[in-house]
Amino acid sequence: MLRTASQFKIASRLFSSAAVRMTSSPVMPLDASKVEIQTTKTPSKPKSNDELVFGKTFTDHMLTVEWTQESGWGTPQIKPYGNLSLDPSSAVFHYGFELFEGLKAYRTPGDKVALFRADKNMERLNKSAARICLPTVDGEEVIKLMGKLIEQDKYLVPEGQGYALYLRPTMIGTTPALGVTAPDKALLFVIASPVGPYYKTGFKAVKLEATDYATRAWPGGCGDKKLGANYAPCVLPQRQAAERGYQQNLWLFGPEKHITEVGTMNAFFVFQDSKTGKKELVTAPLDGTILEGVTRDSILSLARERLDPNEWTISERYFSITEVAEKAACGELVEAFGAGTAAVVSPIKEIGWEGKDINVPLQPGKQSGALTENVAKWIANIQYGKEMHGNWSRPVA
Amino acid sequence: MLRTASQFKIASRLFSSAAVRMTSSPVMPLDASKVEIQTTKTPSKPKSNDELVFGKTFTDHMLTVEWTQESGWGTPQIKPYGNLSLDPSSAVFHYGFELFEGLKAYRTPGDKVALFRADKNMERLNKSAARICLPTVDGEEVIKLMGKLIEQDKYLVPEGQGYALYLRPTMIGTTPALGVTAPDKALLFVIASPVGPYYKTGFKAVKLEATDYATRAWPGGCGDKKLGANYAPCVLPQRQAAERGYQQNLWLFGPEKHITEVGTMNAFFVFQDSKTGKKELVTAPLDGTILEGVTRDSILSLARERLDPNEWTISERYFSITEVAEKAACGELVEAFGAGTAAVVSPIKEIGWEGKDINVPLQPGKQSGALTENVAKWIANIQYGKEMHGNWSRPVA
Repeated sequence: MLRTASQFKIASRLFSSAAVRMTSSPVMPLDASKVEIQTTKTPSKPKSNDELVFGKTFTDHMLTVEWTQESGWGTPQIKPYGNLSLDPSSAVFHYGFELFEGLKAYRTPGDKVALFRADKNMERLNKSAARICLPTVDGEEVIKLMGKLIEQDKYLVPEGQGYALYLRPTMIGTTPALGVTAPDKALLFVIASPVGPYYKTGFKAVKLEATDYATRAWPGGCGDKKLGANYAPCVLPQRQAAERGYQQNLWLFGPEKHITEVGTMNAFFVFQDSKTGKKELVTAPLDGTILEGVTRDSILSLARERLDPNEWTISERYFSITEVAEKAACGELVEAFGAGTAAVVSPIKEIGWEGKDINVPLQPGKQSGALTENVAKWIANIQYGKEMHGNWSRPVA
Repeated sequence: MLRTASQFKIASRLFSSAAVRMTSSPVMPLDASKVEIQTTKTPSKPKSNDELVFGKTFTDHMLTVEWTQESGWGTPQIKPYGNLSLDPSSAVFHYGFELFEGLKAYRTPGDKVALFRADKNMERLNKSAARICLPTVDGEEVIKLMGKLIEQDKYLVPEGQGYALYLRPTMIGTTPALGVTAPDKALLFVIASPVGPYYKTGFKAVKLEATDYATRAWPGGCGDKKLGANYAPCVLPQRQAAERGYQQNLWLFGPEKHITEVGTMNAFFVFQDSKTGKKELVTAPLDGTILEGVTRDSILSLARERLDPNEWTISERYFSITEVAEKAACGELVEAFGAGTAAVVSPIKEIGWEGKDINVPLQPGKQSGALTENVAKWIANIQYGKEMHGNWSRPVA
């Protein structure tokens, strides 16, 4: 249903033509050079690395920029981290006018702090904004502002492999009225959280429940955008999977039981043809139901560059839980992992489906497959500036 | 896909069993008798009826109740209307942890103010809460608290046919952390807006665009709940329809092009068999993709009570835009309307579909069909206490 290529093209043309119209002639563009900085009077002491919990501790400052339809973007403000004060009728509380991004800043050689592929996050932020009629931004200006924000609290960016500063750009509709309509007021803000490695003691492979009774995303919906709307409805199925002993959901779609995503990450599988020995790295295609993950894109790019095409095929194609179960049964399932900003890669060891568990191979004595391990290294080396890769790592502070 | 009855039963069982577990043994239940009231020092002057704009003016007070997983519900507070102060990492800003209700209080004989079917709204509020792992409430206590809130500002409840006090109970997740998980802190609040009739000068029938490139709701999703997640993504298709000259979307679903809802309302159509002369009032069934509208339920109940079964069939069944187009072509389409709390009923005069406009009949010289007009009267008479109907109208202030 609405899953043919031509139907998608229509949907995508309709959505994107509106996006173009929306971004034309903003009244006042976002201008990083106008930033006003108010520093905290009570700077905090850095926490020790082992005290860091993802997204619970924040740096001393935050960035806010107000937007109105009438005047465009206001003066960017960097100020002490603190509560937002909003009218209870604000659009964000009632109709889901909210989007976010997640990206990390890493300590790199020469006492620099660098963002990883922030331009991709800004591109996606604008796609998310256009999809729910929030204002778009000049991503380059937001990157500059994030650099200034990081400079304020540079001493709080943790050191060490696996440690980073997680940045959370967020945009909310703030119009104080209950009509269901495009907001004429919005707030862009960025907060920052020093974080440690997702797996403190190396990888820990997870068990997934293949889920078809709940559906994460749908053609003609907004599952490819980073909107709040896509997250809250997935927490109940996750809780239910956890009660049955599985950490996360492997989201299936349609009568074909296509594999789409895992938890809040993109899903990658490795198959090996038992006759030819050739391997295939496969992930779902960007058909409008799949989040356009920056880690997903990085993995695909690096795999295409670095894996021998005589030994590997890199595929963005539909594949189903049935195909995975069949390949597992005949020894053709090699490994599987989730991919996202928080963990980079998250290896999978088991998938519950139709009352049985599909076993996903791991390397002997290890908690991941071989490609999963390599991909993690490839990306970390670029993130921490040990290796250059085009403009993927960009010093900002 | 996932559209068979048995698949829905599984989904609904899975979702509802979790809901039951979640509501068991709350640490501290919501208790209206504990309410603390702080009155405003600057009471406002009532606006004249013609100054009222839906959801833009609010009364002087609001209700707030905090919840934590650890302690349960806190002390209900009625206090002057004012901003909420929230940590920027709060779950509501990032992951769509928000739900709302909409209901109206009407001036009834004997200087009373009465709520219309508030128990149904409380029932739905709890279903919405369970679906996104927010706490459920004792609806009876919330109704009592809304009564006390209305008492504070009773003089601001407007008088006159079509005028009412719109109440907006809202619940948001307030946990200040970025992990995607069930909130352990929440805030329930209620704000109130004096409103006038949706159609100030009688009905004004609308033109709809039948929309299949964007999808409002899907099986295994949350389109039947009143969650913020269902609203923001529908504003872009609405804007696009408006650019093509249609006020709202008629939401279609699936390859069958089933008619599901209209804008943010339930959809009703009237057909008449040209051979037998028998009429059918039809609306989509509650299959998990349709909002469980209180107005929808009221219309179905009243139609079953008041329409002659020899002349009418009342159907909750799937029906498609193709069926509507075919019936229109042979003179069997009688009328159509949307149904919701804001407008009660909203007559439809035209539906754009496949490059043509389907004409929906109106009564000669009027802006609605005959049943639309009757339904509006039936419901208004109960809302304004001119007619009793079981416990549908409940005096609270």
